[in-house]
Amino acid sequence: MTTNNLYNEYVQMMQKAADMNNAAAVLSWDQEVYMPAKGAGFRGKQIATLVSAAHEILTSPKMGELLETLHTNGQLTDIEMANITKSYEDHQKHKKLPHAFVEELSLQTSECFNAWIDARKQNNFDVFAPSLAKMVDLKRRQADLYGYTGHPYDALADEYEPGANVAMLDKLFDGIKRDLPPILAAIAQAPQVSDALFEQHYPKQQQWDFSMKVLEHMGYDLEAGRQDISEHPFTTSFAPTDVRVTTRVDENNYASLLWSTIHEGGHALYEQGLPESEYGLPLGNAASLGIHESQSRLWENCVGRSKEFWNYFFPILQSYFPTQLSGYRAEDIYKACNKVTPSLIRTEADEVTYHFHVLIRYEIEKRLIDGSLATKDLRAAWNEGYQQHLGITPPDDKRGVLQDVHWSHGSFGYFPTYSLGSFYGAQFFAHAQQAIPNLNNHIAGGDMKKLLPWLRTNIHGHGRRYNSETLCQKVTGEGLDTNYFLRYVRSKYADIYGITM
Amino acid sequence: MTTNNLYNEYVQMMQKAADMNNAAAVLSWDQEVYMPAKGAGFRGKQIATLVSAAHEILTSPKMGELLETLHTNGQLTDIEMANITKSYEDHQKHKKLPHAFVEELSLQTSECFNAWIDARKQNNFDVFAPSLAKMVDLKRRQADLYGYTGHPYDALADEYEPGANVAMLDKLFDGIKRDLPPILAAIAQAPQVSDALFEQHYPKQQQWDFSMKVLEHMGYDLEAGRQDISEHPFTTSFAPTDVRVTTRVDENNYASLLWSTIHEGGHALYEQGLPESEYGLPLGNAASLGIHESQSRLWENCVGRSKEFWNYFFPILQSYFPTQLSGYRAEDIYKACNKVTPSLIRTEADEVTYHFHVLIRYEIEKRLIDGSLATKDLRAAWNEGYQQHLGITPPDDKRGVLQDVHWSHGSFGYFPTYSLGSFYGAQFFAHAQQAIPNLNNHIAGGDMKKLLPWLRTNIHGHGRRYNSETLCQKVTGEGLDTNYFLRYVRSKYADIYGITM
Repeated sequence: MTTNNLYNEYVQMMQKAADMNNAAAVLSWDQEVYMPAKGAGFRGKQIATLVSAAHEILTSPKMGELLETLHTNGQLTDIEMANITKSYEDHQKHKKLPHAFVEELSLQTSECFNAWIDARKQNNFDVFAPSLAKMVDLKRRQADLYGYTGHPYDALADEYEPGANVAMLDKLFDGIKRDLPPILAAIAQAPQVSDALFEQHYPKQQQWDFSMKVLEHMGYDLEAGRQDISEHPFTTSFAPTDVRVTTRVDENNYASLLWSTIHEGGHALYEQGLPESEYGLPLGNAASLGIHESQSRLWENCVGRSKEFWNYFFPILQSYFPTQLSGYRAEDIYKACNKVTPSLIRTEADEVTYHFHVLIRYEIEKRLIDGSLATKDLRAAWNEGYQQHLGITPPDDKRGVLQDVHWSHGSFGYFPTYSLGSFYGAQFFAHAQQAIPNLNNHIAGGDMKKLLPWLRTNIHGHGRRYNSETLCQKVTGEGLDTNYFLRYVRSKYADIYGITM
Repeated sequence: MTTNNLYNEYVQMMQKAADMNNAAAVLSWDQEVYMPAKGAGFRGKQIATLVSAAHEILTSPKMGELLETLHTNGQLTDIEMANITKSYEDHQKHKKLPHAFVEELSLQTSECFNAWIDARKQNNFDVFAPSLAKMVDLKRRQADLYGYTGHPYDALADEYEPGANVAMLDKLFDGIKRDLPPILAAIAQAPQVSDALFEQHYPKQQQWDFSMKVLEHMGYDLEAGRQDISEHPFTTSFAPTDVRVTTRVDENNYASLLWSTIHEGGHALYEQGLPESEYGLPLGNAASLGIHESQSRLWENCVGRSKEFWNYFFPILQSYFPTQLSGYRAEDIYKACNKVTPSLIRTEADEVTYHFHVLIRYEIEKRLIDGSLATKDLRAAWNEGYQQHLGITPPDDKRGVLQDVHWSHGSFGYFPTYSLGSFYGAQFFAHAQQAIPNLNNHIAGGDMKKLLPWLRTNIHGHGRRYNSETLCQKVTGEGLDTNYFLRYVRSKYADIYGITM
């Protein structure tokens, strides 16, 4: 068989597995958005069957043989070879997980997700704990199956951010513990800004309509996507031509829907920008979750919480809510959406305290995975972390340990990518501002058409071709440097709070 | 391996295939209800992959061996043996279709469905014709692959109604051509009833709310299902715990949504009543499409279009539409929804002329499949049929040859089950009236809780255990007898039109 034929065979197998995984993603999307309650039992099994069938293809001896042959073959194009190299690495890793384990994990994910939903309804972590304990056991087994040299957490973190490990993350979070408290202290001493304007009654339909307008302005293609409501906002992709976002509505706090929409919209733009020609192949996927999060954070924070953004959008928002926003100016909402204060909910936190939410979760995860913290003691550890780092204690589990869906999905090692994403995002945006003449003016004029093509060319279009650090170097000329984020934060909050830092 | 273990292995394989097919059903549901337009291309491939994977399991040599062994084994329970017998027959049939053919058919189904959507938008059959021609070719090939002794159409009809064939259907439709015209003639000579009350402006939301109320009264479990809007109403099931219906809304004609909802609700009650324990196995499926249709027709016509139903529901409907229905009485809507008159749209036809809509399609299908009618001549044949049997000609394709989704799905041989369903439905309902004391009074009091359990016990709960004729004999003591339908029609329309027949 010629190289060409072998490569085609590889592509077909990969795309078949992608079809299965994307079908599972449709079933999961439906589960969180539209599925009736009693559907949960069979749905969990259906998803498990699909995930397991995909895993079977990806880890099959046939795939192994194809990759072995193609991996050492000199006749592939650069792009083809990049796909083969990544697939080869994935294959080496994934064949470490037995089929039965993959299926068990998928089943436990559905069960655990449903337990989380129940626990939230009852506002009681104890309802979730037994199911979560099983999940933690599975993730510890997964770490063992993958193997690791340092901390077992390394094996899990690498899934979301290739190359991430406890040594590197500890250093990153040490930086957070060192650099952010002085900034928070300076802000705390300044006259405070008010976000009271968000806390009025904002009817659902108008909130929704405005959020759709923002998505459109960002360049989100609504013929290749849609927005729905779910308990926990998320982005999911079934192909670059069908990338969906969800959001949630709180009629008494507009901030909830608005930031969810812009954040998920940023993720969705990345997925819509992945090359269709590489569907199902590594280069048709995102580089890493950290890079993914850089896109959502860039749009949410650098764009959505900027003075320029609100210069354009405030009058529009006002036309949707003339009563609620009467007497307010663009500057008021700019300040309101950048109010810095310790708070309970990660997804609603400001850009500075946010990283302590991540830090608390990271430290808990490490201990759950190395066995030094039992699931039953998780609520106590959570509340202690919030007291230690943010000086507050959740009044209940819904606003505490039950707020995130991630652990119910078995996503341990995922949270740190949120901080990585903020830092990559700030670094990318700083370079976009240099590369695109008058970017801020364009945004202030409501024109985001300049930013998206830059992101498409420099980031989205590469898929998984480069790892995060290489991509960051290609885009910005250097590896991750948290000073971009620190400079961005210091300059923004000096302006808003009228202080020098 | 013990018989017990072999049976378990069979169950696991069957359920894995069911998971794949049910996942494909979720993807199809989404495609027709929520999918953004550009998602169509990859979605078609994803569904094809799932359908093909399910087919691969069902036709695998391993499944063949299991069925051979279990088929001749004496140690199974009756229910187990019923499953094995049906699966054995299915296996013999399905292994006649090569994988490549199944995948091609699934791909063509997606393409053809999208072509139908396009053609409807453009109101032009020619847009649909090339894609449909490919589909007809595939169905002709499928008939050849299955094999047949009489007409090639027999091989296809048997898929939907085991045992149905041209000889039997020709006889059935000869009866229609003989028995229904005198009834239609008698009605045509009587003073006509008016259905003008439907043709007012009925706001979407209230239509929707009333339809949800009716579904609830029917006993449809909304925690195991949901209703959405689609181009063509349908029922789909992913498990007995997740059975969904769709409907369509025309604000200027309430009849469209109302009958779709009750009709699909009848289908959905059947699917929700299938035994969960037999998920993925023959006894977890419906007996046939004819029996399926008997349930939708029974609810739509025998219940929903009855005087008793409207005695209860008219005041409720009036509370939703006080202006539109002011001055009307229950009797007016009872008459309006039983107005008999030749019309263009099958799904909106009355109970008598309905069967000519089916007859026209049946005669066209036979000719497409035996090759005596070319796809390009389909519009002409359609219009000719409508002129011949109903004395009317469609003014455009949307109200003519493009009105049904079925052919775009490759469902040739499906339409006759609609007439079979009406006839089975009338026969079942006649027996329910005998078996359930005061059934009509219960319905007139809004209580349909008596009817559903009878259907559950006598029909739904058996799944595919008995074929249509055996089931009909078990329920009514005799095989299909169209005289039940004729008596029902004569008595109902004699009352409504004040005539004797």
